[in-house]
Amino acid sequence: MSVEQVIANVESEREAALERLFSFLRIPSISTDPAFAKDCDAAADWLVAQLTEIGFEASKRPTPGHPMVVAHHRAEGPHMLFYGHYDVQPVDPLNLWHRDPFDPAIEEQNGVKVIRGRGTADDKGQLMTFVEAFRAWKAVHGTLPGNLTLLFEGEEESGSPSLVPFLEENREELSADIAHICDTGLFDAKTPAICTMLRGLASCEFTVRGADRDLHSGFFGGPAMNPIRVLSNLIAAMHDEHGRVTIPDFYDGVDPVPNAIKAAWDTLDFDGAALLGSVDLSEPAGEKDYSILEQIWARPTAEVNGIWGGYTGAGFKTVLPSEASAKVSFRLVGRQDPHAILKNFEDFLRQRLPVDVKLDFRPGGASRATVMPTDEPAFEISRKALSEAWPNEAVFVGGGGSIPIAGHFREILGMDSVLIGFSRDDDGLHSPNEKYDLESFQRGTESWVRILGAMQTA
Amino acid sequence: MSVEQVIANVESEREAALERLFSFLRIPSISTDPAFAKDCDAAADWLVAQLTEIGFEASKRPTPGHPMVVAHHRAEGPHMLFYGHYDVQPVDPLNLWHRDPFDPAIEEQNGVKVIRGRGTADDKGQLMTFVEAFRAWKAVHGTLPGNLTLLFEGEEESGSPSLVPFLEENREELSADIAHICDTGLFDAKTPAICTMLRGLASCEFTVRGADRDLHSGFFGGPAMNPIRVLSNLIAAMHDEHGRVTIPDFYDGVDPVPNAIKAAWDTLDFDGAALLGSVDLSEPAGEKDYSILEQIWARPTAEVNGIWGGYTGAGFKTVLPSEASAKVSFRLVGRQDPHAILKNFEDFLRQRLPVDVKLDFRPGGASRATVMPTDEPAFEISRKALSEAWPNEAVFVGGGGSIPIAGHFREILGMDSVLIGFSRDDDGLHSPNEKYDLESFQRGTESWVRILGAMQTA
Repeated sequence: MSVEQVIANVESEREAALERLFSFLRIPSISTDPAFAKDCDAAADWLVAQLTEIGFEASKRPTPGHPMVVAHHRAEGPHMLFYGHYDVQPVDPLNLWHRDPFDPAIEEQNGVKVIRGRGTADDKGQLMTFVEAFRAWKAVHGTLPGNLTLLFEGEEESGSPSLVPFLEENREELSADIAHICDTGLFDAKTPAICTMLRGLASCEFTVRGADRDLHSGFFGGPAMNPIRVLSNLIAAMHDEHGRVTIPDFYDGVDPVPNAIKAAWDTLDFDGAALLGSVDLSEPAGEKDYSILEQIWARPTAEVNGIWGGYTGAGFKTVLPSEASAKVSFRLVGRQDPHAILKNFEDFLRQRLPVDVKLDFRPGGASRATVMPTDEPAFEISRKALSEAWPNEAVFVGGGGSIPIAGHFREILGMDSVLIGFSRDDDGLHSPNEKYDLESFQRGTESWVRILGAMQTA
Repeated sequence: MSVEQVIANVESEREAALERLFSFLRIPSISTDPAFAKDCDAAADWLVAQLTEIGFEASKRPTPGHPMVVAHHRAEGPHMLFYGHYDVQPVDPLNLWHRDPFDPAIEEQNGVKVIRGRGTADDKGQLMTFVEAFRAWKAVHGTLPGNLTLLFEGEEESGSPSLVPFLEENREELSADIAHICDTGLFDAKTPAICTMLRGLASCEFTVRGADRDLHSGFFGGPAMNPIRVLSNLIAAMHDEHGRVTIPDFYDGVDPVPNAIKAAWDTLDFDGAALLGSVDLSEPAGEKDYSILEQIWARPTAEVNGIWGGYTGAGFKTVLPSEASAKVSFRLVGRQDPHAILKNFEDFLRQRLPVDVKLDFRPGGASRATVMPTDEPAFEISRKALSEAWPNEAVFVGGGGSIPIAGHFREILGMDSVLIGFSRDDDGLHSPNEKYDLESFQRGTESWVRILGAMQTA
C-alpha cells in the first residue's frame, strides 16, 4: 500500500531529514527585531530551495515586511493548502539558555530525545513535518499527492502585519478547499489533537508621561508625579479581586461553553494541577468559578507582557523617570470584538490619568477568536488518519493561543482550517531552551503522510 | 586686601580654569556601572595630579570599590575639611542628550551661558569651585590658606559602599573642626544658600517571581499568575488616595516643622508652581495638606526609581514573564530609621504576595536625615562671606536630597558640615543635558575665596 511505502521512506530518511531541519534552525529568523531581517529573508530562500527540490513551483514573494513563500503543485482533485511560519521568537533572556539557541542539537531530557533550539517547536520543526511528508511521497511515487498550495509566513511572531494585504492581493491563487495549519500541539504524549477553537488576540503598547524630563528624586520627590506609580495603578485597576477584567464591556460576546462541548472536555484526561505544577505554580490565577481548561480554552484574558520605566541597570539611581511603559495583550473568545476592546481599554486608561499625566496609546494586532465547523468532512478524515499514527485516538480540542491565520483564511479566502500540530506542553515555546521531541518530528511526518493518503482517496 | 587679589587672580585665570574643568568632565566616571571602573580610577588620578600641582600632599587611596582621593595642607589653626565627589550618574537615556555627555562645551540656554555635560553640576563643576579657589590663593599668596584636608569620593552616585569603612579606618587623619561640602544648590539665581536640613535615603531592589520560566500567554494566559500584575498591585498599595505612604510605622520619627522654621521658610521667595511648571507639571502629587516646599524639605517619600519585567524590546511578544522587578527608594526626614523602614517595607511586600509568588528583596543604602546646628560659628561666618559674592543675602534652607556624607561626618568624625553649592533647579542633575551655569562656576569660585578668607581671620 502506497502510504506504508511512503512511511518506510520517511523512516529510512530520518537522518537526512534531521540534517535538513538543523540547517533551517540555524537561521536566526527573529521577525520582531529588525536586526534579523536578513535572516528572515535567508529562511525564506532556504524554504524556496527545499520546495523546488521536492518538485513544487516555489517562490519568495515580497511584502512590506518579511517575505512570504508560496509553492504550488497543480493537479486534479480537491485543492489543499498547507501553512506554517518560518519566523521565530526572540531569544532573550539569553543567559537562561544552556546552549546557543541557533545551534540545534539532539539532547536527552527526562529520558526522551529532544531537538533543542529556537523554532524547533514553533514553528520550523512543525512545518518541516509536512514538508518532509511531501518529500517522501515524491520519492516513492515520483509525483506530489494532489492539488497543493503551500504558504509560509515570516511575521507570525510579530503580529503578521503583511498577511491580510497579501491574502487579499492573492485571493484567487491562495483560495483552496481546505487549509491544514501546522502550529498547534498534541493533547498529551499519546493523544493527537485537532484544535477547533482558538482564542483571538488584541495587543497594544502604551506610555504614561509625567514631567518633561527625568528628575532627581531629592529635588522633586514628593510634589512630582511618578509615572511608574501611575502605570502601576492603571495595571492594578485592570482586574478585580475575582480575577475578572474590569474594562467596560470587555465580556460582550463571551458566550458560556455549550454543555455538550463541556461534557466532551470533561472526558479528557486533563490534569490542570500538573500543568501548573510543571512550571512551579499551584493555584489557578484566572477568573474564579472557571476550571483551568475553561480559563485557557474558553475565557478571555488581559495580560501585561512587558513593563519598563526609570533606571533598570546595575546599581542604583535616584531618578523620578519622565515616563513608564507597558505592553498589554488580550486573549479573546467567542464574538469579542478586538477593535472595540482596544478602544475601550484606551478610554479606560485615559479616564484614570491623574492631572499632568499624558498617555501615548499604540494599538497593535487585532484578531477575533475562531470556532471551526467540525462537521465538514475534512475534519473527520484528518482526525481518523491522524489517529492511525499515534497510540490514542485523535480528539477535537480548544486552544488557548491565537492563530489569527485561521480567521483570515475563513474571512478572506472562504476556507476552513484543520489545525494539527505535534508540540507538547513542556516544549518551552517563546521561552529559553525551546525543544521539540524527536518523536513529534518523526511521528508528525508520518501523520501527514497518512492524512495526505486519506485526503487523496476521500 | 588679600581676598580681593585672589579674586582678581580667579578672574584673570578664567579660561585656564574652564580648560581644567573640561578635561575633568571628559572622563566618564560613572560609578554605578562596572564598565566604567577604569574611568573612575582615571578621574581620581586626575584630581591627585591637580592637587599636587597646587601644593597639597595628595594621594589616591584604594577601597574595595572606587578609590578615594585625600589631600592635606598642614598648618596651624582650625582644621577645615572640604568634600566633593568625582563620580557621575549614568547617562541613559542617551538619545535625549543633544550632545555627547562627556564632550563638554559652553552653550547658551535661555540667554545664559552654561557648561553642558554629565557631572557639570553634580559634582565635578561644583568641587572644582573650591579647588580653583585654592589654586588662586596659592598663586597670589604662595601658600594655601590654613590647615586643610580635602576628601573626594568616587561612589557617591552608587550608594557610597566604601565610605563608612574608609572614614572609620582613617578617623584620626580625616577628623577636622568643620567640613565644607560642595554638592548642593543656590536658593535662586541671586540667592546663595547653606543647606542645614537634609533628607535621608533608604533604597532597595526587589523581584517577584511566579512560574519558574517565561510562559506563552496562549497556553498559560488565565490560570498562570502574572508577576507584572503582582508587582503593579504591590506598588499601587504603597500610597493611599491622599498621597500618604501606607507602609506600617513609616511616619514614626517624622516631626512637624517647628513654627519658627516654617515662618522663616514663608519669607522665602519660593514659587512652587514655577518649579513644577519648569518640568511641565502643574499639580503637586505629594501628601495633601503640605506645601510644595514642605513636601520637598520636610516630608518623607516612597518612590519607584525603576521597573522592569517581560519583553521590553521592539515589537511584540506574547509572554507571561517569570519575574518582574523594581527599584524603590525612600527619602527620610527627622528621626526616621532607614533600617526599620526597609524591614517594614519587606514585610509589607511579603504580606501581600499571592500564593505561588516568591519575593527576592535586596536592601540597598540606608542613611538618616540630618539637621545641622546653625548656632556653630562656622555657619554664620560662611553665610556672611557667601553673601558678599552674590546679589542677595545667603539663607539657611532645607534640602530634599540626601547627602549621607554629612551624617557620616557627624557620626564617625564628630564634625558638622556646612553645605554650600551653586547648582540651580534647572541644571538637570541625573537627567539628560545636565548643565552648570558659567556664573555658578565663576561666582562659586569667588564664594570659596571669600569663605576661606573669612575662616582664616575668624
